[in-house]
Amino acid sequence: MKKLLLSSVILGCISPVYAQEALGFAPNSKSPVVNPDSTVTLSIRAPKAEKVSVFGFSAYQPIELTKGAEGVWSVTTPKLKPDLYTYSFDIDGVRTIDPANAYTARDISALFSEVIVPGGNADLYAVQDVPHGTVSKVWYNSPILGMDRRMTIYTPAGYEDNKDKRYPVFYLLHGMGGDEEAWNELGRASIILDNLIASGKAEPMIVVMPNGNGNMAAAPGHTGDGMYTPNGEYSKAEPGKFEKSMADIVKYVDSHYRTIPDKAHRAIAGLSMGGGHTWRTSMMMPDDFDYIGLFSAAVRWNGSGVDNSDEGLIKPLERQFKQAPKLYWIAIGKEDFLYDLNKDYRLMLDGMKIPYEYHESEGGHTWTNWRDYLVLFTPRLFK
Amino acid sequence: MKKLLLSSVILGCISPVYAQEALGFAPNSKSPVVNPDSTVTLSIRAPKAEKVSVFGFSAYQPIELTKGAEGVWSVTTPKLKPDLYTYSFDIDGVRTIDPANAYTARDISALFSEVIVPGGNADLYAVQDVPHGTVSKVWYNSPILGMDRRMTIYTPAGYEDNKDKRYPVFYLLHGMGGDEEAWNELGRASIILDNLIASGKAEPMIVVMPNGNGNMAAAPGHTGDGMYTPNGEYSKAEPGKFEKSMADIVKYVDSHYRTIPDKAHRAIAGLSMGGGHTWRTSMMMPDDFDYIGLFSAAVRWNGSGVDNSDEGLIKPLERQFKQAPKLYWIAIGKEDFLYDLNKDYRLMLDGMKIPYEYHESEGGHTWTNWRDYLVLFTPRLFK
Repeated sequence: MKKLLLSSVILGCISPVYAQEALGFAPNSKSPVVNPDSTVTLSIRAPKAEKVSVFGFSAYQPIELTKGAEGVWSVTTPKLKPDLYTYSFDIDGVRTIDPANAYTARDISALFSEVIVPGGNADLYAVQDVPHGTVSKVWYNSPILGMDRRMTIYTPAGYEDNKDKRYPVFYLLHGMGGDEEAWNELGRASIILDNLIASGKAEPMIVVMPNGNGNMAAAPGHTGDGMYTPNGEYSKAEPGKFEKSMADIVKYVDSHYRTIPDKAHRAIAGLSMGGGHTWRTSMMMPDDFDYIGLFSAAVRWNGSGVDNSDEGLIKPLERQFKQAPKLYWIAIGKEDFLYDLNKDYRLMLDGMKIPYEYHESEGGHTWTNWRDYLVLFTPRLFK
Repeated sequence: MKKLLLSSVILGCISPVYAQEALGFAPNSKSPVVNPDSTVTLSIRAPKAEKVSVFGFSAYQPIELTKGAEGVWSVTTPKLKPDLYTYSFDIDGVRTIDPANAYTARDISALFSEVIVPGGNADLYAVQDVPHGTVSKVWYNSPILGMDRRMTIYTPAGYEDNKDKRYPVFYLLHGMGGDEEAWNELGRASIILDNLIASGKAEPMIVVMPNGNGNMAAAPGHTGDGMYTPNGEYSKAEPGKFEKSMADIVKYVDSHYRTIPDKAHRAIAGLSMGGGHTWRTSMMMPDDFDYIGLFSAAVRWNGSGVDNSDEGLIKPLERQFKQAPKLYWIAIGKEDFLYDLNKDYRLMLDGMKIPYEYHESEGGHTWTNWRDYLVLFTPRLFK
């Protein structure tokens, strides 16, 4: 009786007869498979397809799959550098995720499948069996933006148990089209922090990832606007207002978390638009951040509400560097479309004899670079 | 110059020339469209397909789409009851999410697209512009299971600001194949709680959603096991051990959150396997839970490590009801494959003169029912 019961429960749950909306299994094909030689084999069963390609492994040049037995298409990529790759299939003109892969990340309105090719920094993007921090979706009120807004907050392992300990805070800002989920999903920020802290390479710290779109309360689907199709909400934001509202965020974090509320224990960094936000915020709040990271930053960007006049740019920069931050770190890829903008900015800083560190990488305006920059920048903080 | 710069930054970010892995947009087709008459129109561009169907709107009978202009297939469903629907396309034998829909939920190893048909309880499944609680992914140590494990914890709006206020706790358990993400994703638990609390229908409470698979530390992809293909890890768990480890969870929550740590301020409920866990845990901890919810519960389930003898079942039940809980709530659908099991259990309770409340719904073993049960059960708690 007991055995029978057990079987019926299990059968009931996984057999097609009973399977209702509660249970979903991937198709039998195993994809992706990461091979020992750092290639990745992808496969998908599409018996009637005429052409199947995969995008994502070679800077957006598609790789064609070959049809094999039982309608299963497959391909093995060239040897790949260690990294987190996002990819999608194109089956006769229909773009889709890999249906055999449960792991995806959203980028604006599209989902991509994910796979990690291990080695190097990519091992920091994979969850390891180390102590894990807590990741929370927190709502705060912003008087400056006039709304309740959502952010992602990482508190390091041990935060809940060491009730007397106070922590430094790292504010980490996303780019255009992103939101408060971008750094943690595509950027793997909390996983990277877990791993860097566990290995002693980074100090335990709180990481705050706000929504940098000053007109939005939260990521798509998390507001009363419903499950609309996101299209990158940046264009509607009032220039410069999000940067002003960083003061609300710092105030909220300092009053709700066990922070060390001074310049020496605050860092700020951002990518692309968020690099512009970082650049401008650190200038507007010269006494608040000792560590500043500009990742492929949209510096001098009009959208930041700054002009290039003496009043708008030169004097605030001079003011910021009167008590120079401990680290002003500029990073960009050689192929980044913002390369020249950053070069001009560095020339200006040189002319003003403003000290900074510069990191030039291969590649362009990519999460590959931004994850790398996070891995390089974070160990420099609060030491 | 400023205008030029702005344009180049925006163009640089969204034009195909520059679009790198940072930006993804859905195809132009708008799908799904929820119509005013509670039908849903779905469409997908698949110019070369021979047959396109959608699964999910009629108890797993597929609905065929029709090919129209420019290779766009579409269909309008029959009028649908208000609910959250999960669905997927089948394009010539390839299962895929709706590429124009950014909203998905994972169910074991498969992703499904999501759409809400508004009205009735479904309005509680949609995010409303009300005060929102905080949702956290928290790691705790379980001495009984011998590992660090992850759970989802919801703290209600106001928790962070009312530092002197203490809250009741609702432990909410998932079913087979699920994990600590299931109730919040497929079950929309934190959204439902936000809405019920904001309208005054439910008390502000903490909701704890652990991982009920005693052999797993966390949902797939969140452990050192990497991004493996989940297959429902339930079969490997030692029977009864998760229920024992609920004591670790209660202890952790009472020592890390501002709870009211007594029976009158603790509820526990679960669906299917989690209903079995609830049933057994509430028997093993008779002085700890005053509100018990069995949703389509696998009661008497061998996997709970209980036998049906006097020692294993009758005496613990008598012990539990010596100080009867305030609410012992049994709910199941008429078509649920566990219907007879629950009927037998109720007959036994009747014979023992044990008081309970019974809710019988239409339908079967589905999230439709479990979300409904959550909406019915939660307002009954802590009053």
